[in-house]
Amino acid sequence: MSSTTGQVIKCKAAVAWEAGKPLVIEEVEVAPPQANEVRMRILFTALCHTDVYFWEAKGQTPLFPRIFGHEAGGIVESVGEGVTELKPGDHVLPCFTGECGDCHHCKSEESNMCDLLRINTERGVMLNDGKTRFSKNGQPIYHFVGTSTFSEYTVVHVGCVAKINPAAPLDKVCVLSCGISTGMGATLNVAKPKKGQSVAVFGLGAVGLAACEGARMAGASRIIGIDLHSGRFEEAKKFGVTEFVNPKDHDKPVQKVIAEMTDGGVDRAVECTGSIQAMISAFECVHDGWGVAVLVGVPNKDDSFQTHPMNFLNERTLKGTFFGNYKPRTDIPSVVEKYMNKELELEKFITHSVPFSEINKAFDYMLKGHSIRCIIRMDA
Amino acid sequence: MSSTTGQVIKCKAAVAWEAGKPLVIEEVEVAPPQANEVRMRILFTALCHTDVYFWEAKGQTPLFPRIFGHEAGGIVESVGEGVTELKPGDHVLPCFTGECGDCHHCKSEESNMCDLLRINTERGVMLNDGKTRFSKNGQPIYHFVGTSTFSEYTVVHVGCVAKINPAAPLDKVCVLSCGISTGMGATLNVAKPKKGQSVAVFGLGAVGLAACEGARMAGASRIIGIDLHSGRFEEAKKFGVTEFVNPKDHDKPVQKVIAEMTDGGVDRAVECTGSIQAMISAFECVHDGWGVAVLVGVPNKDDSFQTHPMNFLNERTLKGTFFGNYKPRTDIPSVVEKYMNKELELEKFITHSVPFSEINKAFDYMLKGHSIRCIIRMDA
Ligand SMILES: NC(=O)c1ccc[n+]([C@@H]2O[C@H](COP(=O)([O-])OP(=O)(O)OC[C@H]3O[C@@H](n4cnc5c(N)ncnc54)[C@H](O)[C@@H]3O)[C@@H](O)[C@H]2O)c1
Ligand SMILES: NC(=O)c1ccc[n+]([C@@H]2O[C@H](COP(=O)([O-])OP(=O)(O)OC[C@H]3O[C@@H](n4cnc5c(N)ncnc54)[C@H](O)[C@@H]3O)[C@@H](O)[C@H]2O)c1
Ligand SMILES: [Zn+2]
Ligand SMILES: [Zn+2]
Ligand SMILES: [Zn+2]
Ligand SMILES: [Zn+2]
Repeated sequence: MSSTTGQVIKCKAAVAWEAGKPLVIEEVEVAPPQANEVRMRILFTALCHTDVYFWEAKGQTPLFPRIFGHEAGGIVESVGEGVTELKPGDHVLPCFTGECGDCHHCKSEESNMCDLLRINTERGVMLNDGKTRFSKNGQPIYHFVGTSTFSEYTVVHVGCVAKINPAAPLDKVCVLSCGISTGMGATLNVAKPKKGQSVAVFGLGAVGLAACEGARMAGASRIIGIDLHSGRFEEAKKFGVTEFVNPKDHDKPVQKVIAEMTDGGVDRAVECTGSIQAMISAFECVHDGWGVAVLVGVPNKDDSFQTHPMNFLNERTLKGTFFGNYKPRTDIPSVVEKYMNKELELEKFITHSVPFSEINKAFDYMLKGHSIRCIIRMDA
Repeated sequence: MSSTTGQVIKCKAAVAWEAGKPLVIEEVEVAPPQANEVRMRILFTALCHTDVYFWEAKGQTPLFPRIFGHEAGGIVESVGEGVTELKPGDHVLPCFTGECGDCHHCKSEESNMCDLLRINTERGVMLNDGKTRFSKNGQPIYHFVGTSTFSEYTVVHVGCVAKINPAAPLDKVCVLSCGISTGMGATLNVAKPKKGQSVAVFGLGAVGLAACEGARMAGASRIIGIDLHSGRFEEAKKFGVTEFVNPKDHDKPVQKVIAEMTDGGVDRAVECTGSIQAMISAFECVHDGWGVAVLVGVPNKDDSFQTHPMNFLNERTLKGTFFGNYKPRTDIPSVVEKYMNKELELEKFITHSVPFSEINKAFDYMLKGHSIRCIIRMDA
């Protein structure tokens, strides 16, 4: 037991006081974990679009002050009542979505959409008592997706914590908490290309590049990257992309271009853009008879997916995925092992690194589209 | 070798001279099979909606005179050059779609949409020479979907002929050539419910009832039948349907009604109506996390499938199927075995039977909605 067990911890956190304003490093108080909660020290965290999206808070109910951050690696400091599967010192990845182990989804082999702990971007408090564990001078500071990793210490529901191999370097595997696992899992767990098949990936951001990495790991023969920015293509080669298509370079729908390149369609397509047009193209570019398309990108509220039903009757499959169909506690440790076995190459996703004090630079890199992942070093 | 080998056979056929006019039993001439063709004697045939649809020829290019019929059981009379897998005397089911064995689809484990022999409703001639094998007084009579089973003898491409167990009663298994296999395969091969899961079937015609039969065979715990005609419900009980919903009885969308009945949605849904609204409802009524919906019904040309993409992101799957994903030559013999093993109950699909001379009665029964399947006895 550490000397801080049961005590409030004072530490540094990057607080978002207002939508779109630079984060401010503050000294905050972190309350001890309650029942089924875990308090952990964060060593490394990364920035993801979802943080930026809710920090900008355009068109959402703003919830401030708030501590963002959800891709991270840390070490358990103390555990609350009823937590038996984790102990101080364990190496862990906090996850934005959880696994209670008891609901229909957790009991289903196929689903990872836990009824209790499924991502909730609007809730800024802990489930146990509906309150925050963060405060500054008595003022509560809201949580973000149950993780709030832009803090030296954070409190997370035990169902949202993956216990991983302590030999894994946290400054690398921290990116497996969200986007990289999402894209890779979309290919490996949902699209499931067979060795030698062709895969189209729409959108070459972090998630799409991870989908390409999944296709490379599966032994795809052709990986066709599609993006509106031709600048994405050079980098994508590192992720196994063999051919590039920019829809803007063609005067016919990109699904037609791809069908012509592939004798009728690709075997698998993974959409990682959030654009409804790309979702429809991804579905319509797969081969009849066996083609599978997987949607990953988060659409707009009023988008409508439209296609001719004959495209289904001709034996195409359309699926969507959430967090690459990984169950956070059950499956993420094995994703870490894929990195340890050198099956999965994580280094190429990590383009930048900044000390915690310069966390706002990570936002700049992402907003300018320069970074895939920028690691934030908490102890620096 | 029979005495008719290599000879033109004169026999009776029910000829459709004009769209929508009663068929006329005529003496026709049936030419010998050419390369890769099989001539067979038809013993029993059944009537399916597809025959009626092309006989009515509304909104299609009419092709007359024509011999309809595609669900049947027969015995090989003679084979053309290059046919090694069949010989005179073999018991067979002709199929409206084929399996060449050589194309990408035939080589894929997943597809049954053969490039060469996929159903073609507009072609009225044989592939080998682009001509018909039927004629009357020198006037060619067109084929229908390569089968034309409303004739005592017919010529079929070898890739469209399933060789079956000679012990199987042809007056029963003849219905496995089309609709029954389609519905059953949609459930067993594509929706694949696990034992104890719930299945919704939209449309309780022959195809939908076969989908219910598939669900019963798979050990579904609940089979919810949905139809606009409450009259279909009583009969459907024989096919394992445990609950009924008529969308007209509710003032909310039927997918909501089903979600409420099933704690969030059914595990599997199979659409067998051809109505675009039912297709959308079938997809939207499956449970998030693991639900799978399968489209079987043939839509209209200008239909559009529309749904919110979040319905996919929440881990639902949408697929379509053609002929229940069965490969005609490879798989249909094993469907016959399911009947022989008493796993599959065919008798309940056969509601009527008429002698060949009264074939027009079979059209009446179907048009009035009285029959599931009416068997036409060729020797009577
Ligand atoms: N389902 C999940 O569990 C999950 C988890 C994380 C992220 N996401 C979503 O995945 C998507 C991708 O995330 P990211 O971080 O990689 O985003 P990103 O913005 O870095 O990358 C998106 C890429 O898509 C490209 N693009 C946009 N519209 C396009 C179109 N019509 N055709 C081709 N390319 C197009 C953009 O140019 C960009 O390069 C986002 O929608 C994100 O919300 C989903
Ligand atoms: N995909 C294939 O390989 C294949 C093969 C054979 C048949 N089919 C198609 O399967 C469909 C069913 O064939 P069938 O012979 O059973 O037809 P059918 O007309 O006998 O049965 C259709 C049933 O659906 C019901 N229905 C219509 N609209 C509905 C709605 N909105 N909600 C609920 N029920 C509705 C009707 O009342 C009817 O009972 C047809 O579209 C047919 O073309 C497809
Ligand atoms: Zn759960
Ligand atoms: Zn993220
Ligand atoms: Zn073929
Ligand atoms: Zn049919």
